[in-house]
Amino acid sequence: MKPTIVRNITRADEGTVRGLGELGVATVHEAQGRIGLMRPYMRPIYSSARVWGSAITVSSQAGDNLMIHAALEWCRPGDVLVVTTTAESTDGMFGELLAVSARARGVSGLIIDAGVRDVVDITAMNFPVWAKAISAQGTVKATGGWVNVPVVCAGAHVHPGDVIVGDADGVVVVPRATAAEVLHAGTERVAKEQKSRERLRSGELGLDMYGWRARLAELGVRYVDHAD
Amino acid sequence: MKPTIVRNITRADEGTVRGLGELGVATVHEAQGRIGLMRPYMRPIYSSARVWGSAITVSSQAGDNLMIHAALEWCRPGDVLVVTTTAESTDGMFGELLAVSARARGVSGLIIDAGVRDVVDITAMNFPVWAKAISAQGTVKATGGWVNVPVVCAGAHVHPGDVIVGDADGVVVVPRATAAEVLHAGTERVAKEQKSRERLRSGELGLDMYGWRARLAELGVRYVDHAD
Amino acid sequence: MKPTIVRNITRADEGTVRGLGELGVATVHEAQGRIGLMRPYMRPIYSSARVWGSAITVSSQAGDNLMIHAALEWCRPGDVLVVTTTAESTDGMFGELLAVSARARGVSGLIIDAGVRDVVDITAMNFPVWAKAISAQGTVKATGGWVNVPVVCAGAHVHPGDVIVGDADGVVVVPRATAAEVLHAGTERVAKEQKSRERLRSGELGLDMYGWRARLAELGVRYVDHAD
Amino acid sequence: MKPTIVRNITRADEGTVRGLGELGVATVHEAQGRIGLMRPYMRPIYSSARVWGSAITVSSQAGDNLMIHAALEWCRPGDVLVVTTTAESTDGMFGELLAVSARARGVSGLIIDAGVRDVVDITAMNFPVWAKAISAQGTVKATGGWVNVPVVCAGAHVHPGDVIVGDADGVVVVPRATAAEVLHAGTERVAKEQKSRERLRSGELGLDMYGWRARLAELGVRYVDHAD
Amino acid sequence: MKPTIVRNITRADEGTVRGLGELGVATVHEAQGRIGLMRPYMRPIYSSARVWGSAITVSSQAGDNLMIHAALEWCRPGDVLVVTTTAESTDGMFGELLAVSARARGVSGLIIDAGVRDVVDITAMNFPVWAKAISAQGTVKATGGWVNVPVVCAGAHVHPGDVIVGDADGVVVVPRATAAEVLHAGTERVAKEQKSRERLRSGELGLDMYGWRARLAELGVRYVDHAD
Amino acid sequence: MKPTIVRNITRADEGTVRGLGELGVATVHEAQGRIGLMRPYMRPIYSSARVWGSAITVSSQAGDNLMIHAALEWCRPGDVLVVTTTAESTDGMFGELLAVSARARGVSGLIIDAGVRDVVDITAMNFPVWAKAISAQGTVKATGGWVNVPVVCAGAHVHPGDVIVGDADGVVVVPRATAAEVLHAGTERVAKEQKSRERLRSGELGLDMYGWRARLAELGVRYVDHAD
Repeated sequence: MKPTIVRNITRADEGTVRGLGELGVATVHEAQGRIGLMRPYMRPIYSSARVWGSAITVSSQAGDNLMIHAALEWCRPGDVLVVTTTAESTDGMFGELLAVSARARGVSGLIIDAGVRDVVDITAMNFPVWAKAISAQGTVKATGGWVNVPVVCAGAHVHPGDVIVGDADGVVVVPRATAAEVLHAGTERVAKEQKSRERLRSGELGLDMYGWRARLAELGVRYVDHAD
Repeated sequence: MKPTIVRNITRADEGTVRGLGELGVATVHEAQGRIGLMRPYMRPIYSSARVWGSAITVSSQAGDNLMIHAALEWCRPGDVLVVTTTAESTDGMFGELLAVSARARGVSGLIIDAGVRDVVDITAMNFPVWAKAISAQGTVKATGGWVNVPVVCAGAHVHPGDVIVGDADGVVVVPRATAAEVLHAGTERVAKEQKSRERLRSGELGLDMYGWRARLAELGVRYVDHAD
Repeated sequence: MKPTIVRNITRADEGTVRGLGELGVATVHEAQGRIGLMRPYMRPIYSSARVWGSAITVSSQAGDNLMIHAALEWCRPGDVLVVTTTAESTDGMFGELLAVSARARGVSGLIIDAGVRDVVDITAMNFPVWAKAISAQGTVKATGGWVNVPVVCAGAHVHPGDVIVGDADGVVVVPRATAAEVLHAGTERVAKEQKSRERLRSGELGLDMYGWRARLAELGVRYVDHAD
Repeated sequence: MKPTIVRNITRADEGTVRGLGELGVATVHEAQGRIGLMRPYMRPIYSSARVWGSAITVSSQAGDNLMIHAALEWCRPGDVLVVTTTAESTDGMFGELLAVSARARGVSGLIIDAGVRDVVDITAMNFPVWAKAISAQGTVKATGGWVNVPVVCAGAHVHPGDVIVGDADGVVVVPRATAAEVLHAGTERVAKEQKSRERLRSGELGLDMYGWRARLAELGVRYVDHAD
Repeated sequence: MKPTIVRNITRADEGTVRGLGELGVATVHEAQGRIGLMRPYMRPIYSSARVWGSAITVSSQAGDNLMIHAALEWCRPGDVLVVTTTAESTDGMFGELLAVSARARGVSGLIIDAGVRDVVDITAMNFPVWAKAISAQGTVKATGGWVNVPVVCAGAHVHPGDVIVGDADGVVVVPRATAAEVLHAGTERVAKEQKSRERLRSGELGLDMYGWRARLAELGVRYVDHAD
Repeated sequence: MKPTIVRNITRADEGTVRGLGELGVATVHEAQGRIGLMRPYMRPIYSSARVWGSAITVSSQAGDNLMIHAALEWCRPGDVLVVTTTAESTDGMFGELLAVSARARGVSGLIIDAGVRDVVDITAMNFPVWAKAISAQGTVKATGGWVNVPVVCAGAHVHPGDVIVGDADGVVVVPRATAAEVLHAGTERVAKEQKSRERLRSGELGLDMYGWRARLAELGVRYVDHAD
């Protein structure tokens, strides 16, 4: 329970991480059984933002960003900062100077269950950020916290070293242990969807393609003409 | 009360629908007496999105998109899907594959009082969507529901065949029976506003142009100098 | 308590206002001691929106924009309209015609703790607006209110003549009396940050640059290896 | 679209209304197929509040209670006022004087998708109210509206004369046409639940009683020992 | 802008304060022209809570209650603590120990735009509190703030020494300068309402008693029979 | 990732669990370093509700309570059900029949990050429940889920077998491994607070008792007379 910084973490294989990132959030979320998604209030600060990487986790006092500074020391190229606070807050705990510092350390992006500021500058840097709010509200450096311990971020559980994927659909977390398996399942899903896409594009109905007419009947859904 | 799909609905005249669409949401809303507007949490997934068409309504179990698939069979070119759930939800009930299928059936756009996903792909298709949330959260196909019955969507009542107009200001519903009348009133309003616009642009005050100085006096509004 | 319009207000020096505007919201907020920020639900209707100017304040009945019309008479070039309502509302109290009128009077932008509509047209005019909501919901002109009295807007206190600065990070209010002092402090801050930026860009850690390693120790933050 | 008061409505049979009221909200909601429930933000102002009756509907401008006064003229003993506004609002549109007036006209209770005030006095009167908010915010009488037209209240569609049931679980709407059928289904449900209750009380599991072990197997749910 | 404690404030006359308190929130709010009401999210922690007194204002860092302790030194019997934070927070900044201390200093109650904890104990003490949230979340004592400066609390402007009235309907603020005038207007209102109450209880309609039939006609509200 | 029920879990010592329960939420939360608290939207359905016990965790599809039934089989006397859903929902997933069944199995209470119904009956049973919402919205039994796996509930991480404490201040989670240590720290805290309480009751200021006058000085807080 004492404020603690864990210096070393285990990361997933780089190729697996990139593969998951290329699949995108919706596919990864489906491929691992519809779990691990952060709440939809987490939005990218610009619509083309995409990120993938290994989670460096931070748990801070609300309104205090000292531990983000402390976490940067342990980031490696390709890591993604995942920041949460012990109480809810929308304060702007991360701004352009921190983005410059994070980029200099090779950090790929930020997921923060709080606020962010200097969004025009950070967008111009093309540094991807998902946040709960945009707020100029400044923060203090007065209370200790945790780096690289398990955290809850926007309703999802994140262990340090878990794979983080973010895009316009939100943010999903893949446990390191199952990352390869999820990549495999997601890749298969993409192939299968490509075939479905062609059939749907040609006008075939999902009802027929997936065989759901039977299910409608089974569920007792009846058809009538004009009920207007 | 039994889950039901109504196959045939009556639509408004195509010219009327297009005319209302060209007027835009704010004008249509005013022209029909400031009613029929959906709640402002309904936002387009891209800022240039515009839509008009006849409503095909869907009422689903939250987190279940089986009935959207069922509804597509009864859509005609120019229709707009209006989807609501029996309990509140932000799940991503509609994604790129459904958008491909909807476009193949001629559907003009989607209004959904729930979530949507694959927003980058759907934006690239220029398929207009208004939703409560963007969420990758996947859905099941396990419970029956209703197609083409009256629904409440984002606080507005929608009958199948009602005219739907959506743009950056939100979404408005026009009952089929009054669509022509509202188009007429809206067209007159646009003409009148054009004259007002010119006078306001030249620096004339609304107070003078609309004669509201008298109303201020009537309401007992007083003028004072410096109260700082 | 009687509905009142104050005709004349005192404004800050034009150079000071412009200087604060060029500093931007986050810097101004920090420079005046992290106070005066509006709540983060106040968002610009387009992402490049920026504004600075002297506040003309309006307090209206919710859903009634008569007093915005009344306020325009007392605006001067460079003023910013700050509108609030006596009860919470998201109605679209300001639209394109009012934007045309405001621009004709030289108004630089609008801050409104309520809704706005015609956002495509207002964006095309490049007229900057910060609002709580986008809503086509129309308003009446039935109740008196106040112009140029102190108001609370989105959680911030605004006196007429206070300096308003808005950008993508939100909106901040600077009391007229301290505007010059805040400009001075902000300008110094920018200079100092430029030096920090260079050091951070080169890979130096904030921990070292700001001397926060000592604070971590003082707060009892311990370091461990692998706790995974 | 013109503001209108409909003087006469058709009500359901008194015995049916009372029967539905005695079943309570949860049972009625289930008995009609899990539809017709208002959003859960509608809460009673005191925890023992219960109501049933025929809906007299009101659609008002937000912040304006003139039409509630107008509606009282057409209420009969046993009616329930169902009030909504054309835009969202939490203003206190109903207070103790209106409650006195409503009771004098025989009104059984109030469902209001807005605010209420004087809640201590109204509770002392034992006049049941479900509302979105408690707020002292006063209202004006400046804009026309509608009485006894179909309305959307807290996400549910209400026709005048529909049966309204409210208790600590919320508010449910039963269309007049199906009220007798729903009463019948609900009564059967209560009888069946009484048997289930006894078996569950004796320690039998729902899994066994309802036969859901098979469903778990079918859905692929596996059992393991200790995964801690 | 520097953190400051103002030791001495001017209070309203004790009789006036008590008189306003006895009128209650709804009446006071109406008597001063429907202004000064805090947002309806401010709720008492027990339903019979009532308070009146002179405001001692506190502006704190979110999640930090040091300045509440500092404020207690300057409270006199009959004062009401009004606490706000510079950024939004629901942390439990006030608990039973602080309530014991406040009561020992003669403080009549607490209005806090944040959270409160130990609500069972504080309720047992019959110490009235209005708060945004109930939360056990603990706070630090790390950042300076302000005592007895003007603050914005739950959307209302409060000067130190203003009269605060709280009951089950919410919280209203009366500027010290107008307190006597508002008391006078409120007392007259109560007398008038007593007469209205009798007439309404006897079944007379507000439409007739207040003469609003004419207004309905003027607003173009029409009457029809049966539109079901 | 496959739906799984873990049959056996390890629980904390009964005396430790009861000891933590008697300390209450606020004290336990402080004693473990201000972590482990659920979000403040989790409220008891009646104000005197208190609970302590070992967590049996459930993760369900939103709107589907099949897994709660499945979990009851593995509950032992003194356990607390902790239920969460894979997507946000307020549906009433737990009602009186489930409460009867849970009580028959010895379950001490329910923590559910969703809705609950039949609250009058459950309150009459004195079965304590903390929930996000009260809603009659019924649920289906159509999708598999998880029992006794780690879950995120209302922003807090819960492992099966963790100690749960709930009262009017909210819900806190104590990891099984540190339960004894937290009980010890909490007990000491209570003793210390009893001494502080006496001193505060006698009128001593926290500023003096805790020595915070020095901190105010250090933080640069200045004192002035009258700034009104």
